[in-house]
Amino acid sequence: MIVVMKRECKEKEITDVLKRLSESGLKGHLSQGVERTVIGVVGVDPILPDLREMLELLPGVEEVVPITKPYKLSSREFQPENTVIKVNEVSIGGKELVVMAGPCAAETEEQVMSTARAVKAAGANILRGGAFKPSTSPYHFRGLGEGGLKLLAQAKEETGLPLVTEVLAPEDVELVTRYVDILQVGARNMQNFILLDEVGRVNKPVLLKRGMSATIQEWLLAAEYILAQGNRQVILCERGIRTFENYTRNTLDLSAVPIIHKLSHLPIIVDPSHGTGKWYLVSPLALAAVAAGADGLLIEVHPTPDSALKDGAQSLTFEHFEELMVKLAPVATAVKRRIAVKKA
Amino acid sequence: MIVVMKRECKEKEITDVLKRLSESGLKGHLSQGVERTVIGVVGVDPILPDLREMLELLPGVEEVVPITKPYKLSSREFQPENTVIKVNEVSIGGKELVVMAGPCAAETEEQVMSTARAVKAAGANILRGGAFKPSTSPYHFRGLGEGGLKLLAQAKEETGLPLVTEVLAPEDVELVTRYVDILQVGARNMQNFILLDEVGRVNKPVLLKRGMSATIQEWLLAAEYILAQGNRQVILCERGIRTFENYTRNTLDLSAVPIIHKLSHLPIIVDPSHGTGKWYLVSPLALAAVAAGADGLLIEVHPTPDSALKDGAQSLTFEHFEELMVKLAPVATAVKRRIAVKKA
Amino acid sequence: MIVVMKRECKEKEITDVLKRLSESGLKGHLSQGVERTVIGVVGVDPILPDLREMLELLPGVEEVVPITKPYKLSSREFQPENTVIKVNEVSIGGKELVVMAGPCAAETEEQVMSTARAVKAAGANILRGGAFKPSTSPYHFRGLGEGGLKLLAQAKEETGLPLVTEVLAPEDVELVTRYVDILQVGARNMQNFILLDEVGRVNKPVLLKRGMSATIQEWLLAAEYILAQGNRQVILCERGIRTFENYTRNTLDLSAVPIIHKLSHLPIIVDPSHGTGKWYLVSPLALAAVAAGADGLLIEVHPTPDSALKDGAQSLTFEHFEELMVKLAPVATAVKRRIAVKKA
Amino acid sequence: MIVVMKRECKEKEITDVLKRLSESGLKGHLSQGVERTVIGVVGVDPILPDLREMLELLPGVEEVVPITKPYKLSSREFQPENTVIKVNEVSIGGKELVVMAGPCAAETEEQVMSTARAVKAAGANILRGGAFKPSTSPYHFRGLGEGGLKLLAQAKEETGLPLVTEVLAPEDVELVTRYVDILQVGARNMQNFILLDEVGRVNKPVLLKRGMSATIQEWLLAAEYILAQGNRQVILCERGIRTFENYTRNTLDLSAVPIIHKLSHLPIIVDPSHGTGKWYLVSPLALAAVAAGADGLLIEVHPTPDSALKDGAQSLTFEHFEELMVKLAPVATAVKRRIAVKKA
Repeated sequence: MIVVMKRECKEKEITDVLKRLSESGLKGHLSQGVERTVIGVVGVDPILPDLREMLELLPGVEEVVPITKPYKLSSREFQPENTVIKVNEVSIGGKELVVMAGPCAAETEEQVMSTARAVKAAGANILRGGAFKPSTSPYHFRGLGEGGLKLLAQAKEETGLPLVTEVLAPEDVELVTRYVDILQVGARNMQNFILLDEVGRVNKPVLLKRGMSATIQEWLLAAEYILAQGNRQVILCERGIRTFENYTRNTLDLSAVPIIHKLSHLPIIVDPSHGTGKWYLVSPLALAAVAAGADGLLIEVHPTPDSALKDGAQSLTFEHFEELMVKLAPVATAVKRRIAVKKA
Repeated sequence: MIVVMKRECKEKEITDVLKRLSESGLKGHLSQGVERTVIGVVGVDPILPDLREMLELLPGVEEVVPITKPYKLSSREFQPENTVIKVNEVSIGGKELVVMAGPCAAETEEQVMSTARAVKAAGANILRGGAFKPSTSPYHFRGLGEGGLKLLAQAKEETGLPLVTEVLAPEDVELVTRYVDILQVGARNMQNFILLDEVGRVNKPVLLKRGMSATIQEWLLAAEYILAQGNRQVILCERGIRTFENYTRNTLDLSAVPIIHKLSHLPIIVDPSHGTGKWYLVSPLALAAVAAGADGLLIEVHPTPDSALKDGAQSLTFEHFEELMVKLAPVATAVKRRIAVKKA
Repeated sequence: MIVVMKRECKEKEITDVLKRLSESGLKGHLSQGVERTVIGVVGVDPILPDLREMLELLPGVEEVVPITKPYKLSSREFQPENTVIKVNEVSIGGKELVVMAGPCAAETEEQVMSTARAVKAAGANILRGGAFKPSTSPYHFRGLGEGGLKLLAQAKEETGLPLVTEVLAPEDVELVTRYVDILQVGARNMQNFILLDEVGRVNKPVLLKRGMSATIQEWLLAAEYILAQGNRQVILCERGIRTFENYTRNTLDLSAVPIIHKLSHLPIIVDPSHGTGKWYLVSPLALAAVAAGADGLLIEVHPTPDSALKDGAQSLTFEHFEELMVKLAPVATAVKRRIAVKKA
Repeated sequence: MIVVMKRECKEKEITDVLKRLSESGLKGHLSQGVERTVIGVVGVDPILPDLREMLELLPGVEEVVPITKPYKLSSREFQPENTVIKVNEVSIGGKELVVMAGPCAAETEEQVMSTARAVKAAGANILRGGAFKPSTSPYHFRGLGEGGLKLLAQAKEETGLPLVTEVLAPEDVELVTRYVDILQVGARNMQNFILLDEVGRVNKPVLLKRGMSATIQEWLLAAEYILAQGNRQVILCERGIRTFENYTRNTLDLSAVPIIHKLSHLPIIVDPSHGTGKWYLVSPLALAAVAAGADGLLIEVHPTPDSALKDGAQSLTFEHFEELMVKLAPVATAVKRRIAVKKA
């Protein structure tokens, strides 16, 4: 249920609605848009007719709208304007196209520092890198842990690039939050509800990857877990879904980009590296993602992909990343996006 | 097996190889590239060592290459240069971006003629329209048959746009060939081998849609059926695959575009109308397809989608199609494609 | 729309309803059950209120039921009793469990005859074998054609086993009908509507395999094509669907068995050979299919699977087939099915 | 790598091998089979030739086998005999067929107690019930927490049935372990590696559900996480995978049963309730699972499915569960399984 307040409603009228909800055992989530204020009341559909009438009688209330979609806080109905998330000087979800780039996993100082410098020089806005890595096999590299976070922090110190990294365990959230600017919840954890609750209680943006067999509705419901805990800074990331096609590692579902823009106010970026699993497909799919309306990209870059401890096959070299950024600029312009890429 | 001829080999040396193959009960398919001639010998992998040695001893032969991929004539190894297909003045697979547009099914003279005029005015190069329609239910509209072909011919007469239409039955191939410029084999018939054989014996380009659960390899093998019969003018068309996601009718697999360009010399176009099933997703996915490197688009346009006998939900109105064409131009330019769109 | 006649209605009342339908431009399909007669009227949902009222006023009519399901003739509502199909002395869809066994493709006289004798000895009721084979690659074995049909006919002559074989081309239907007792439409042709129409006009049972990405509803609609042409003898065959799992060739969907029994009156059998693609999985899945309520099995058997021209990996040897039949008997008995297996 | 010890090797020879491995920085996992002892050395494929030679020279060592499969401890090569897990008097993975039944979620004392009595009376061996529930939406019922565990403990107290319940959070493992006999890791957490590690350090059997888009190999690798931490009591549970078919909630993959028996020594049970999502499909698929060789079943039972807080549509009533148990007995007998069901 959504309570839409009148355009010119007063502060007190809003708190009165919240108070009345609270007396009925409900909780209202406030959304102050540019044009008007909207109050999301979760968990009460179908709403009782009495409650609806009672609320519509309150001063300042324009209308009470039942919602049939199972997600609310993440829906376009709840918040018509795009959510724009600020990370230092970078805006995600606005006119600017955001490029997050870096190695799959932080491995060595040399690797992290050289990659950070290279992606910054080519025009990336945010540095990505994994310290805690989920791995299908217990015998594979699982990341450097806090050591990896320290390497990333050093790279941020030098380049000024904000950081995004994955967090795997609820108990690591606090530690990771100290080092980085955006917390990533990986595809395998999209329905790890304990972790979603935890990152929902943090005051940092969360990058929520789509689960490999998650429908768009389930994905928005996972976002809803985070939003419902109070953290409104969620960035969605399409990274491919699992299908019968096995030439690619996953099937990148670019339809998700305009669908999310239609259903939700949250920004959506695309990860063509995991989405295809092959470096030579990253560039064409990155261009396609931007043309489809993505708010940004997440790209794996590695100084020597052949010797990467993780996911080398899908990483771009510095040179290939630079070439991609050069190709990206005119496509971004063609769809009226700003991009901070250096001229070739 | 592929016999690669020397750059400067003589005509007679080529015919000698073909003759020797024929004596061994094999059939060679000639491919005269700009740089050199290559002879595909199908159906003989693993090749007999004797045969290979014998062939390599012939004058003019540079080398004999076994192929592990199951398709041959459609492979990039067999023909390194892109196949460019000419349909009247339109080239498919070259620099030019081809836009095929029109109604899902030809319904009435008024509908076909008005749509033909509108898509031409907006910049489409080829008119699409169905006369024989496959339908999941026996109780739904199955097309006007030859009557539909006549309406399309009338639209071609007036607008000069070449025609593409689907053929369902092997025995209709001859009839359809008389009316249209490109024969379409639909997704449900991608492994109808009898039909593939039949269109392979015709001297008209064939648009081969990807089956809804076909891997890229199976799709190239379906193309191989047509090529093996002698028809080298095959255009591939990605139109979405079947996955668990049900917000869209299919999941458009844009990775297929750069993959086909890598594996094959055949042109590939994209159908975002069937690929998404929702008209408001057609435009962003069309832009994405072009950015990913597609050689063209196949778009459904209808004067009044609400009253369409078939697939109205995914058809663009004239106005939306025109808007798409205006947006398409700068994206095409950004990826260095020529497009014949009128200025808005 | 279904017109349910009264229990004690007269012949003339039925013909009156049919006549009235015909005057309204509609066609009624008669279904004379043990208890009552039902008339299916296809293609008229939503029905006009006038038509419904008019029909309900006719003598002998009990009620007129609109149907929301898109298939009608194949639905359990249309025909509450199971369809039981007689092929010589074998009944498909009744108490008896039917086992169709034989080679994927007829290759040689020796192979066909020895297999026919072996499967008969072990208890199979029907001989399967392919003469026209669909093949993903144009360079693979495509069957012996009429030569294969002759070999099968010879095996029938000696063993008395009725025959089932696949028909690929509409123009071959007449030829195949002359030789065999059940026509098979393969998974790749499940939506080859031209072929469905053709086998719908024949007076022979049709075995309709589920398409590899067909939903159950689409499968019943494909059956509806055959039924709508007048051929009511359709046997459905679950043979696995395409999923992300690649350990097996397909994912055998045994839920389809009770679902079909719920939605439809048509018999359903299961093909664990194509459904798994691995011979050592055939036996456990065959037992499971029978436990789930399948009316029969379709099993590939080959004298020397290692040297089979087609699908050897999924074929049972004579010995393994005999072992399976011995294991099958107690499971069949446990679910109250009769089976003609010899004691071990 | 697996070190196979000689049949008659001495205790000291085994400890010598372990010591030598430890000196090389490796860890050996001991598996004492009935016939011989095998030592799994994880994380070292491809093995260094020197290490292999060195180990083969040690007294008592029969051979050193490299393993190409990515999982080791869960593989049939590592342990040829079936793992049989004892939970009080119930054996899982042996001759006996295990039936775990109960409500999806523990809701009230009345509901838990009546269900426990009913399933016990009908022949179930283990009581299932959820206290911590994963839910796709943050606004749905998420379980009673410790209160639910207490209700389950009370039911165990009265009926003597061992308990299985899901654990969601790593920090709840200790709490849940105090109350129940088997810890369940749900499908959504199959690749929650933090949780897998945690339950791997506990001395209680773990029921590991297959992720809804997990391949069989990924599933065995998830089991490997638990085994690698030292907990060898893992029970696998097939519960349906996500496919395009939407008539059922998931597609139950019964091929997984014989495949797991071939690849692994771990027991496998089947959950037809989640696997189909419809109560009327539970019984036929339960029979099929047993016929395919499953070691047990996990079935949802609820006193009043219509009013269940969670997953009512797939729950059996007491009456339906009893009917299922009666039908199960002859099928179990047919495949040579013991079952403790009361006679009807």
